[in-house]
Amino acid sequence: MPATLELDPDRLLPVDPETRAVARGLYESVATLPILSPHGHVDPAMLLDDNAFSDPADLFITRDHYVTRLLHAAGHDLADLGAGRAEVTDPRAVWRLLAENWHLLAGTASGYWLTHELVTLFGIDEEPSPATADATYDAIASHLSDAAYRPRALFERFRIEVLATTDDPMDDLAAHAALARDASFPGRVLPTFRPDAYLDPTAPDFVQRIERLTASNGTPADDFIGYLDALEARRAHFVAHGAVSADHGVREPFTVDLTDDEASSLYARAVAGDLDAAGARAFRGNMLLRMAGMSARDGLVMTIHAGVHRNHSTATFDRYGADTGHDIPVATTYTENLRPLLERHGLAPSLHLVLFTVDETVYSRELAPLAGFYPSVFIGAPWWFLDAPDAVLRFRAAVTETAGFYRGSGFIDDTRAFLSIPARHDMARRLDSAFLARLVREGRITLDQAERIAVDLVDSVPRRAFKL
Amino acid sequence: MPATLELDPDRLLPVDPETRAVARGLYESVATLPILSPHGHVDPAMLLDDNAFSDPADLFITRDHYVTRLLHAAGHDLADLGAGRAEVTDPRAVWRLLAENWHLLAGTASGYWLTHELVTLFGIDEEPSPATADATYDAIASHLSDAAYRPRALFERFRIEVLATTDDPMDDLAAHAALARDASFPGRVLPTFRPDAYLDPTAPDFVQRIERLTASNGTPADDFIGYLDALEARRAHFVAHGAVSADHGVREPFTVDLTDDEASSLYARAVAGDLDAAGARAFRGNMLLRMAGMSARDGLVMTIHAGVHRNHSTATFDRYGADTGHDIPVATTYTENLRPLLERHGLAPSLHLVLFTVDETVYSRELAPLAGFYPSVFIGAPWWFLDAPDAVLRFRAAVTETAGFYRGSGFIDDTRAFLSIPARHDMARRLDSAFLARLVREGRITLDQAERIAVDLVDSVPRRAFKL
Amino acid sequence: MPATLELDPDRLLPVDPETRAVARGLYESVATLPILSPHGHVDPAMLLDDNAFSDPADLFITRDHYVTRLLHAAGHDLADLGAGRAEVTDPRAVWRLLAENWHLLAGTASGYWLTHELVTLFGIDEEPSPATADATYDAIASHLSDAAYRPRALFERFRIEVLATTDDPMDDLAAHAALARDASFPGRVLPTFRPDAYLDPTAPDFVQRIERLTASNGTPADDFIGYLDALEARRAHFVAHGAVSADHGVREPFTVDLTDDEASSLYARAVAGDLDAAGARAFRGNMLLRMAGMSARDGLVMTIHAGVHRNHSTATFDRYGADTGHDIPVATTYTENLRPLLERHGLAPSLHLVLFTVDETVYSRELAPLAGFYPSVFIGAPWWFLDAPDAVLRFRAAVTETAGFYRGSGFIDDTRAFLSIPARHDMARRLDSAFLARLVREGRITLDQAERIAVDLVDSVPRRAFKL
Repeated sequence: MPATLELDPDRLLPVDPETRAVARGLYESVATLPILSPHGHVDPAMLLDDNAFSDPADLFITRDHYVTRLLHAAGHDLADLGAGRAEVTDPRAVWRLLAENWHLLAGTASGYWLTHELVTLFGIDEEPSPATADATYDAIASHLSDAAYRPRALFERFRIEVLATTDDPMDDLAAHAALARDASFPGRVLPTFRPDAYLDPTAPDFVQRIERLTASNGTPADDFIGYLDALEARRAHFVAHGAVSADHGVREPFTVDLTDDEASSLYARAVAGDLDAAGARAFRGNMLLRMAGMSARDGLVMTIHAGVHRNHSTATFDRYGADTGHDIPVATTYTENLRPLLERHGLAPSLHLVLFTVDETVYSRELAPLAGFYPSVFIGAPWWFLDAPDAVLRFRAAVTETAGFYRGSGFIDDTRAFLSIPARHDMARRLDSAFLARLVREGRITLDQAERIAVDLVDSVPRRAFKL
Repeated sequence: MPATLELDPDRLLPVDPETRAVARGLYESVATLPILSPHGHVDPAMLLDDNAFSDPADLFITRDHYVTRLLHAAGHDLADLGAGRAEVTDPRAVWRLLAENWHLLAGTASGYWLTHELVTLFGIDEEPSPATADATYDAIASHLSDAAYRPRALFERFRIEVLATTDDPMDDLAAHAALARDASFPGRVLPTFRPDAYLDPTAPDFVQRIERLTASNGTPADDFIGYLDALEARRAHFVAHGAVSADHGVREPFTVDLTDDEASSLYARAVAGDLDAAGARAFRGNMLLRMAGMSARDGLVMTIHAGVHRNHSTATFDRYGADTGHDIPVATTYTENLRPLLERHGLAPSLHLVLFTVDETVYSRELAPLAGFYPSVFIGAPWWFLDAPDAVLRFRAAVTETAGFYRGSGFIDDTRAFLSIPARHDMARRLDSAFLARLVREGRITLDQAERIAVDLVDSVPRRAFKL
Repeated sequence: MPATLELDPDRLLPVDPETRAVARGLYESVATLPILSPHGHVDPAMLLDDNAFSDPADLFITRDHYVTRLLHAAGHDLADLGAGRAEVTDPRAVWRLLAENWHLLAGTASGYWLTHELVTLFGIDEEPSPATADATYDAIASHLSDAAYRPRALFERFRIEVLATTDDPMDDLAAHAALARDASFPGRVLPTFRPDAYLDPTAPDFVQRIERLTASNGTPADDFIGYLDALEARRAHFVAHGAVSADHGVREPFTVDLTDDEASSLYARAVAGDLDAAGARAFRGNMLLRMAGMSARDGLVMTIHAGVHRNHSTATFDRYGADTGHDIPVATTYTENLRPLLERHGLAPSLHLVLFTVDETVYSRELAPLAGFYPSVFIGAPWWFLDAPDAVLRFRAAVTETAGFYRGSGFIDDTRAFLSIPARHDMARRLDSAFLARLVREGRITLDQAERIAVDLVDSVPRRAFKL
């Protein structure tokens, strides 16, 4: 008899019965509130085109490098998993690989979300295994042709109010514009300005990007002020299309304040292709600071995702491309790195700066103290590897005692996996209810306070942080 | 109907009923023991003069940068909060600001202590809010003129046995002397030698301070040995006035062993005002090591509070001064930094070295292993941002398995907020009871052992660490 | 009446009753499974000779620097504890010191293991104290002459299936060979290749070691390729004697890829004794990378124990030698340090690389993400100071959500204290049961899954990681 797959209605709530009862009450008060997703990686074309999803492997495996990396670690070739640039010739074979290795996902966040999706969306009630793989595959596949499983129908079913995408500064945002014009689609799908590749002289094709960027605004590539103007023009284009934030992914959140002359000189060397590593670091660090200035002026919330060594395995990157499971965190510090930026812009009332980390040590040591003073600083929700039950509770415990509940970003799903959005937000709501219930039972907050905070955490907190 | 403000008698105890019962028993055995406060920032003149406190805003807000920083982060101007150098023209308006923003403190240590103080000292039973602000303000204010609310009466009511202040080396300690002579005041109020500004060539007014210091001992400012002698003379003055410890606040706990000639040469350049950053670091690091030598000789317990970037916001510092909420922790390491000091003095039986951190990573990685070997090293209680319920339990869990219960400093309140002292010590006793109760229930220690340890943690442990 | 010493049958299981019941069931399913100990420091001669243990102090104190360090920290001289090179003249006096200071071990891992050993092996039922010290000493001593307390009898009683020792590359492994030949001893006792002192130009007697090593293979000391060949030859000798792993203890896990010419040039300077610190670091880092290459070729599992400053107290080292309690962890990072090694060998199917840390920050930040991608990387079990109940649960919580349960090494006791082996493995099994039970009760895994994982963690997981 195959093992059953099911969702405990009290999952993620505290095990102590009385605390669980308090948590359940809090959770029920927020379980069905609309989803605000101010940062993520869903493709807007998916919602514009509203095509049916192709197959279960595409839906759950090949595009999800959280899943493929675990199968790769167990010795399976990324080619057989259809990861990255690998071609998927037999999606059913990919699905079988997952089913055979289901035990590897036990206890992981990915396993938790997949279970949630299989049960709630597709009514699967048997644990994936070699014996059930084909039947489960067919059951999912049979749903996908159903209109109720098209992206827009799911968007509505998921109760998503706002969904932000992440976009290249040179994107024309035509998909966003078309969605906004489409009266049949009531959702808000907002672009996000993500300029990393235009700010880092060591990024691939930096010079060509700069040439395209500056040309779009009518200045020569080697004019630093023209470059800044072009960036502001693209930001304005994003603002005009509803963007509320600009996102910055950096290995270190280093910032440095330079004069225009100093920065211009580095820029000239970068465009000429002869900037050394120290110069590139200074340029990146100065541009990150200048982006805060632009955010203070145009109002785009500035998010910083710091501390990841991308594409750690060159051989894998060369064969399968980026986002194939080998982005590895590094130790991160914000206090000194961000000081030049905060010295210049940290007290600007219009600046919202949301700081994310995959280095948990930063929570109590730096993020909570910074957000507990600077009105501009918001603590980013647990990100990436830390977006998981125990890690989320560690996060709350690490930041709340210093910064309270009102200096955070609200939950961020940060996902490409559209179908996992409800599972992720549901997880966050359960965990916040669990955390609040413990504080109630420990006499640290009242139930009244907990009830208000539970709602605020999914409503007013993200609305304020992201200016929604 | 306004929400009630109340204190759960079982607050901070574990939620599991049987574990809670064990914890309650342990807590009751220590709840009313005298308070030993061997490190803090209360002004001795307050106890000497014994004047009534002026108003509720002064008592709970304007001097407490833990509270003002959270209101500042929410967008309120420090000027409106009377923080730092800001003048308070309308204390009632400041109080109303707190009442309006009470929800921002939910879950924070400050909110927990404030609640404790409002309920236990002033009998407030309604949660601060715009509706209750004026009535609460008046209720508190009406108490303040009462003799029972003068500092000395509260000192007695709080059952404080020892209270250490923190003082400039050039302080004449007249207030301490007067208190000691005052037969009507039985408490022990001890000075603490805090020489940072005399050891760091980059500190404001370093040269002027050195001139005053050396002149007090009759040597020229540029004589290094005279400088050392003057420091020892001032330490002796403190010892004569009852001091038991010397406190050192440093951004990094770097130490380096230099010959007298090497140090003297750095000193000469420092006094001449032409010491570069690397030289200043070496001088500071050597003086920290030499202070351990002085502690080994004169017996003053050496406390090190490391790892905070003070005055992170220059604009705020320039306008409001120090201690206005923007001291931000940085990553800290002790193992290598402190090695030169420990190589020279770490095995000296007379040296007690208490190490504090705001970087939690140091607990299990460095502090517990160091204190588990060196008889001189004691693990400082959770400090500053970490002086809060969850953080305290993390601390105990991080250090106990390596160092046991007898290598700590005992609880340190480290506060300027006199009225919060009982709340803080009560919190620590509850949390230690909670931790011990869990270990009992997990079969890791016996109830007998827990009962002994609970008492030792508030009695023999701090007495031994601080030579009280 | 002396306090009783006893073992709670439910020790270390969760306090919540229902969760405890689940955990108990899981624990019972694995409690008596054989012990696999693929890394440790037991002397093979002990099993070969099978002599009776000499006395209780020798058994529990003088050789266990976890215990002596805590007594040293409390002010007792290592000489009086018989630590390191100190001579033990009166073992009973040493035992009395432990008994007098038993409270210092409360809450520590050492205290937990000692209790387990005293109760389960010697039937002691009174807490060590001055009053009971002599009687307990005599009771233990009386057992030691019993044949059932000889090493081989205990090996069988402990149900040890595999025990790995740690050995110098030049060891002839005669003891291992003799044990393997001895038909009366059915246990597997495997050597482990530990070449640190032959890879680090700053290690004591490096040149003499190299001379012996290369001479053993018939090449001159200054021939780099000959040196590499000699290392491979010694590894082959270990493989022939059953070794499954090569162990590397380094302060930092730095690696660097060098050409043979570059490495050869550093080697020449090292052998000539004129390699500077930077050169020595590069050589060490390159040799660590080359050892991974050898592991990929000969199949020895490569274990790295990184991040400890050995012999922190020079005075203690000079007087008592190494392993006397003052090895202190330092901050560690793997992501960048190990990248050159992983770039060259990380995807080799034959390489197993087990990474240990005493810096907990590495768990969620680096180890779980690395092991969640690279098939070669396995997460080492909590090591040294972290091999303790709360630390083990923190470890599981930190790595599981990213890497699941199948990317770990399985429990490693890493001990010289032969009698503590069952206590340590029992502890690990209880804690894994506790962790799994919580996940079951939180609806994150099913009971079926937990039952499979509990067995795998003590069986298939270590067998696979260590190629047993």
